[in-house]
Amino acid sequence: MGLLADENPRAGDNLPRAMTGEQGARRSRRRSRERTTPAVAQVPWKQPFRSFEPTELASKDQIEAIHQTSLTIMRDLGIKFLDAETREILLATGGVKVEDEVVFFEPGFVEESIKTAPSEFTFHAPNPERDLVMGGNSVAFGAVASAPNVSDEAGGRRAGSRADFQKLIKLGHSINTVHMWPGYPVEPIDVHASVRHLDAAYDFLTLSDLALHAYSLGRVKNQDGLEMIKIVRQIDEETLQEEPSLWTIVNANSPLVFDAPMTQGMIEFASRNQIVCVTPFTLMGAMAPVTPAGAISQHNAEALAGIVLTQVVRPGAPVIYGGFTSNVDMQSGAPAFGTPEAMQTTIVTGQLTRRYGVPYRSSGVNAANAIDAQAAYESVFSLWGAVMGGAHILVHAVGWMEGGLRASFEKMVLDADLCAMVQTFLEPIDFTSDALALDAVQDVGHGGHFFGTPHTLERYRDAFYKPLISDWRNYETWEEAGKPEAKDRVTELVDTLLATYQAPEMDEAVHAELTEFVERRKAEGGVETDF
Amino acid sequence: MGLLADENPRAGDNLPRAMTGEQGARRSRRRSRERTTPAVAQVPWKQPFRSFEPTELASKDQIEAIHQTSLTIMRDLGIKFLDAETREILLATGGVKVEDEVVFFEPGFVEESIKTAPSEFTFHAPNPERDLVMGGNSVAFGAVASAPNVSDEAGGRRAGSRADFQKLIKLGHSINTVHMWPGYPVEPIDVHASVRHLDAAYDFLTLSDLALHAYSLGRVKNQDGLEMIKIVRQIDEETLQEEPSLWTIVNANSPLVFDAPMTQGMIEFASRNQIVCVTPFTLMGAMAPVTPAGAISQHNAEALAGIVLTQVVRPGAPVIYGGFTSNVDMQSGAPAFGTPEAMQTTIVTGQLTRRYGVPYRSSGVNAANAIDAQAAYESVFSLWGAVMGGAHILVHAVGWMEGGLRASFEKMVLDADLCAMVQTFLEPIDFTSDALALDAVQDVGHGGHFFGTPHTLERYRDAFYKPLISDWRNYETWEEAGKPEAKDRVTELVDTLLATYQAPEMDEAVHAELTEFVERRKAEGGVETDF
Repeated sequence: MGLLADENPRAGDNLPRAMTGEQGARRSRRRSRERTTPAVAQVPWKQPFRSFEPTELASKDQIEAIHQTSLTIMRDLGIKFLDAETREILLATGGVKVEDEVVFFEPGFVEESIKTAPSEFTFHAPNPERDLVMGGNSVAFGAVASAPNVSDEAGGRRAGSRADFQKLIKLGHSINTVHMWPGYPVEPIDVHASVRHLDAAYDFLTLSDLALHAYSLGRVKNQDGLEMIKIVRQIDEETLQEEPSLWTIVNANSPLVFDAPMTQGMIEFASRNQIVCVTPFTLMGAMAPVTPAGAISQHNAEALAGIVLTQVVRPGAPVIYGGFTSNVDMQSGAPAFGTPEAMQTTIVTGQLTRRYGVPYRSSGVNAANAIDAQAAYESVFSLWGAVMGGAHILVHAVGWMEGGLRASFEKMVLDADLCAMVQTFLEPIDFTSDALALDAVQDVGHGGHFFGTPHTLERYRDAFYKPLISDWRNYETWEEAGKPEAKDRVTELVDTLLATYQAPEMDEAVHAELTEFVERRKAEGGVETDF
Repeated sequence: MGLLADENPRAGDNLPRAMTGEQGARRSRRRSRERTTPAVAQVPWKQPFRSFEPTELASKDQIEAIHQTSLTIMRDLGIKFLDAETREILLATGGVKVEDEVVFFEPGFVEESIKTAPSEFTFHAPNPERDLVMGGNSVAFGAVASAPNVSDEAGGRRAGSRADFQKLIKLGHSINTVHMWPGYPVEPIDVHASVRHLDAAYDFLTLSDLALHAYSLGRVKNQDGLEMIKIVRQIDEETLQEEPSLWTIVNANSPLVFDAPMTQGMIEFASRNQIVCVTPFTLMGAMAPVTPAGAISQHNAEALAGIVLTQVVRPGAPVIYGGFTSNVDMQSGAPAFGTPEAMQTTIVTGQLTRRYGVPYRSSGVNAANAIDAQAAYESVFSLWGAVMGGAHILVHAVGWMEGGLRASFEKMVLDADLCAMVQTFLEPIDFTSDALALDAVQDVGHGGHFFGTPHTLERYRDAFYKPLISDWRNYETWEEAGKPEAKDRVTELVDTLLATYQAPEMDEAVHAELTEFVERRKAEGGVETDF
């Protein structure tokens, strides 16, 4: 698979312990966090790796045309950076011109700067068994992030609260195809904004042990997040800067603008070797051209500007190229997801990220209001685009609905099944002599069946993916059972998974230190808010 | 795209007129069959072509290992042919040994025989505007075939009848992503078996004008089908044998058996240069090994045996490699579709078909009982496997449910949307300077929006695929509308499409000749039945 092939020397000693088989010194300090057998049979928690080449929809020349268009946008139109410090950092390189708030990038400077971005690195999770490879053939599914609303069957649709925030973390942590957190699954609006990041990080770190995200809403919040990760991982600043342990997703304000808190957060993260994911959010026809090639050229200019910034701040800082281009309904202006055009842009964007040698973040998304056929097909089409496009991270892949306006408990379970199916599909096929099964075919002969052969009996328990939701009963049996639909099954599964949720273990001393930090920062007033 | 690249000299002069721009002499005899503007906005009827390389999950060595295992099965275990004439035809080649009913194939004979199978040919439809390319980068969606039951929202689930058979043909003919008929959408069991093929072909040929299928249930039925196609196309036997005009799908009785009526039909078709699609139907764990590599090796042996037979009967006869391997639920034995393992086998089978240079038939399938999330995700996963696997035909892609036990009017409409999304995804992306949209980005500048720019206004009407089903309204508007789900929308669309169905035109003289043939053959008693 060339899985660990490392074209970037900086990534060399930096792979997850689970991959190398090493047991680090810190590992022995932790109590085991192995999950016990769950009430719901799932695929085991593991990071999937793609064993095939991504799809290419654009020729090499077409990719180059996009790249050159992006460089022209960066040079002639420039990117507006609202933060003065950011402009000064870029100006000091000698590779840009600045007029008012707009930074004009020299193409040669862009080409040189992005070269230092690592093609592969390890994302260190609070639990080292949950460390993730970023880049190469790796894939990781992230839960829904940043939804203002939440819903479940019993309580209906409502604004986010800390109670639902915690419950969504518990459900996500119970789903074995959730590999990381890309943000708050729902915004806990009942926690004051000045201290919300403290309570939220506390909840994430005590209720789950997966790789964690912090919003770039100014430097102080990011600094708090990094301090809390250091406490939970029990590492000092030097180790933190050797081991990327937190990621932040920044969205350009497309077209062609980066706001101040975003780049401040990026600078804080890049300077301390933490992971920045630069994700222009571009809906074709709204904040980007109506043509896929035009939209990609623009978001590529925005992404490159952000990537350049991280590499100027600290050459070699881990950075991820985020692609998030879909289209709007041109009749109503409504955002659309899982569309054919979104699949196309996702795949072409993947080609660009491989040209640049930077890990690629995409999404698993939909615009559905109900747990119906639309929710399923839009989600699978978006998974298709991202997986075939070679995405390393699929944000929002578990639990997103309504184009991001709602996190749904039921959709989390539906997506758990979809992502597990994709993960199973990604598993390499066994072509050994045993698997080729010549003996079994001989045993059974002409017109027989394979149910009882030794070859089947040895393998049947784990031969095939066992779905959480699909109902394969014949019609009559299904009718007698009351004609349950997929949406009924997911509701049951939400309850079962939450009822059997197990919190990860944490040393009491670590927990005390974490609590003390949160309380101290709250007593200090948290961060300033502008309201 | 290399679309018309022709590695096989026999396919050279045999491409659809729509592709070459030629207007054949026969064309002028027909009255125009252009459809008028439909009540439901759909993509136009056209055959899609893939503009990217299929996915490869197996290495070249692994494909070779499968191939060699298949050759070993064919040589050492042999394939049982229940029909004596078939065995005699094969024995006469000198390339096989026959013991009782089992034919043992010499590997060299197999390798040589399959070389004459054409890699690309034209499938001539009753309406030449519906001719199809088979092979190369072509794709075609086929409707549901061979279901014993049918359902719609109003009438529920019931056994097939001629009335529903006709109504399904009308609905399928009204759906622009139905490119061909792969069999009876539902079995019209109220028509006596001795004459069913006559009434069914009459309905197909008068209610639709798409490329047509005949079941291989003995030679007489196939002969009748070919006579009827000759009448509708107004061609003689010589032209029929130059222009493949009918296809037949034959399933091996896996493992390793071909029954008599099937190979009799194959011989009839191949001898007259009509299209045979050899499709072993192999559920892993039931009629094939539980391992994907083993199941593929076995079905490949079966498919090769059938392909060899066609080429022995008539070297160069058009033949299609059918892959139909899924798995069963090993707990219950229930068939499963759209599974990760089915996607894998579909893609690897595609690799084999390209090794052999034979067009590839796969399927769009699911095992759902309701128009719910399961119906959608299983269908899209199966489309994913087939499209990425380079399938040229996706049988059952429109209207299949319950693992083939039911044709559904509502599922036809859901699938119309899914297939149209795939067809849109297959369209090449425009990378011209206009599409790269540098001027539009400049017009809009930093932080603006693209809704009103000339670049958008010139393109917005046809910029993006307009779904039939997806509801992109915001939650509040959707709630006010009564929270309609995808299954509600498809029911409306079934009614609209059927209400606006337009029969293709047929010359009165042709219709009279067709009717006369059917009546004469009925008067003769049709075909013998064994009950």
